[in-house]
Amino acid sequence: MSKKRVVVSLGHEALGYTTQAQWDAVKATAKALADLVEEDYQLTITHSNGPQVSMIHKAMTELRRVYIDYTPAPMCVCSAMSQGYVGYDIQNALRSELLSRGISKPVSTILTQVTVDPYDDAFYEPTKVIGRYMSAEDAEIEMKKGNYVKEDPGKGFRRVVAAPRPIDIVEIEAIRALADAGQEVIACGGGGIPVIEQQHVLKGASAVIEKDAIAGKLAADLKCDELIILTGVDCVYRDFGREGQTPLPELTAAQARDLISEGQFEAGTMLPKIEAAVYYLKKVPEGRVLITSMKKVKDAVKGKGGTVITA
Amino acid sequence: MSKKRVVVSLGHEALGYTTQAQWDAVKATAKALADLVEEDYQLTITHSNGPQVSMIHKAMTELRRVYIDYTPAPMCVCSAMSQGYVGYDIQNALRSELLSRGISKPVSTILTQVTVDPYDDAFYEPTKVIGRYMSAEDAEIEMKKGNYVKEDPGKGFRRVVAAPRPIDIVEIEAIRALADAGQEVIACGGGGIPVIEQQHVLKGASAVIEKDAIAGKLAADLKCDELIILTGVDCVYRDFGREGQTPLPELTAAQARDLISEGQFEAGTMLPKIEAAVYYLKKVPEGRVLITSMKKVKDAVKGKGGTVITA
Repeated sequence: MSKKRVVVSLGHEALGYTTQAQWDAVKATAKALADLVEEDYQLTITHSNGPQVSMIHKAMTELRRVYIDYTPAPMCVCSAMSQGYVGYDIQNALRSELLSRGISKPVSTILTQVTVDPYDDAFYEPTKVIGRYMSAEDAEIEMKKGNYVKEDPGKGFRRVVAAPRPIDIVEIEAIRALADAGQEVIACGGGGIPVIEQQHVLKGASAVIEKDAIAGKLAADLKCDELIILTGVDCVYRDFGREGQTPLPELTAAQARDLISEGQFEAGTMLPKIEAAVYYLKKVPEGRVLITSMKKVKDAVKGKGGTVITA
Repeated sequence: MSKKRVVVSLGHEALGYTTQAQWDAVKATAKALADLVEEDYQLTITHSNGPQVSMIHKAMTELRRVYIDYTPAPMCVCSAMSQGYVGYDIQNALRSELLSRGISKPVSTILTQVTVDPYDDAFYEPTKVIGRYMSAEDAEIEMKKGNYVKEDPGKGFRRVVAAPRPIDIVEIEAIRALADAGQEVIACGGGGIPVIEQQHVLKGASAVIEKDAIAGKLAADLKCDELIILTGVDCVYRDFGREGQTPLPELTAAQARDLISEGQFEAGTMLPKIEAAVYYLKKVPEGRVLITSMKKVKDAVKGKGGTVITA
């Protein structure tokens, strides 16, 4: 294929907290993605799923409260459902947007699992915040269930789970076959369903894989030309959120690592993006990472805006 | 590929009514599917999803009752979730079963939509029974919502929806790319998410596509060598369920059509299977249809048991 291969990582801005909000949000997301298709990129799209999996988990919990003959749905099953739900909305929105521009291209969703190490340090110190804010009473109920919570002063409590490092993308050969065929593919939704390999069986793990970490892994495995991480800010900043924050239009992987060491990037937001960039560039030194917002990406791929990181 | 290509259609016997029951059921299903992989078939697997989509729909309804800020999840969204849920269980069970036999092969699930005609006669006279039995009171509530119900004397009421004829499998190119790569693929779960094309947009339809109808369509579109329909009986019978029922080991498409005309096959169970066989053999005259049970399929593919239909 002569097309440029890219992995696009979509954050929560690209989706929505409810079925209706998501339906609306993906229309805007599809425009940004279709712009990339028009620039002759083959897209492998990954996305977050925090609010979606949380919604489904709550629904399955309520179901069991009312209909006692149903058995519980573990988080891995809810995550599989969320990949179906989000993939359905993104693939439809992108297909429609492309057709409205006269482009007929297959867009599909591959259900994806990702193996993690049960001895990953992350399991001993969960850091990934998931779900909505809850009251102190609800937080106490979560803690009694053995779950971890974290207080965000003035805002409330949120659940935290382990975010272990991804090891292998189980369905990588299927994703690769579709990318090789030049099709647009949605994969590793929500970072992939985290699973632990026990003999020949994959068991769902109580964890969340950082979607940027999996985007870096996916771009490396597919030997992509580019990794595009879409987020809430137009580019990466030094001293972000402080007086005199400086935009960083270009970085080398070495500079990025130095900035990580300086503690420039916030855990859970920009840090995993920069780490994903560094990981991917180590595996694909000729690659290119672009970090920008959905609004800016059309210009940024032409060199106008965003932050570009190269080896 | 030198492999024989087959579409396998799985009925509700292959899955389960709850998350735990499904987890157990797919292990047995995976053994039957792995036997086919060992016979050098490339499998495209489709499955029913009635109880699964009904479970998810109930869960999403309960969610909204408790958390009023969530918007409703239409049936198409629940169907997308159910494809994620069932695909996850089947792909894992099959992967594990294959690995335990020393076979490492990619198995994945493609989220699939199928277009239907909004003027299909089926919409004027819904016939497809879905979900569990309900009481007369619950049936009345359904009817007030504009839904159709049907009484099964002595057992209760069940909802009925339209089962329109499938027109196009939207994600067929993705399914074909994976089949061409010799991978096992799960697609068109629950008959596919039924959608109506309006301009460039696919809108979810209040309908269910008969899973056997889509299996026939899928086998025809992929020009499969075989279509295997797994069901609760070991073969097709003349005068099924009546005194002196006769097993039918072999049929031609013409004989099958005659038996349909005689009213030999029950709507909603054997009839759609025979119709799918006839449809597929018309498109792929060199093809072969096998109708049997999961228990018998290993022998039946070697000519020992089941019903074989050819053009």
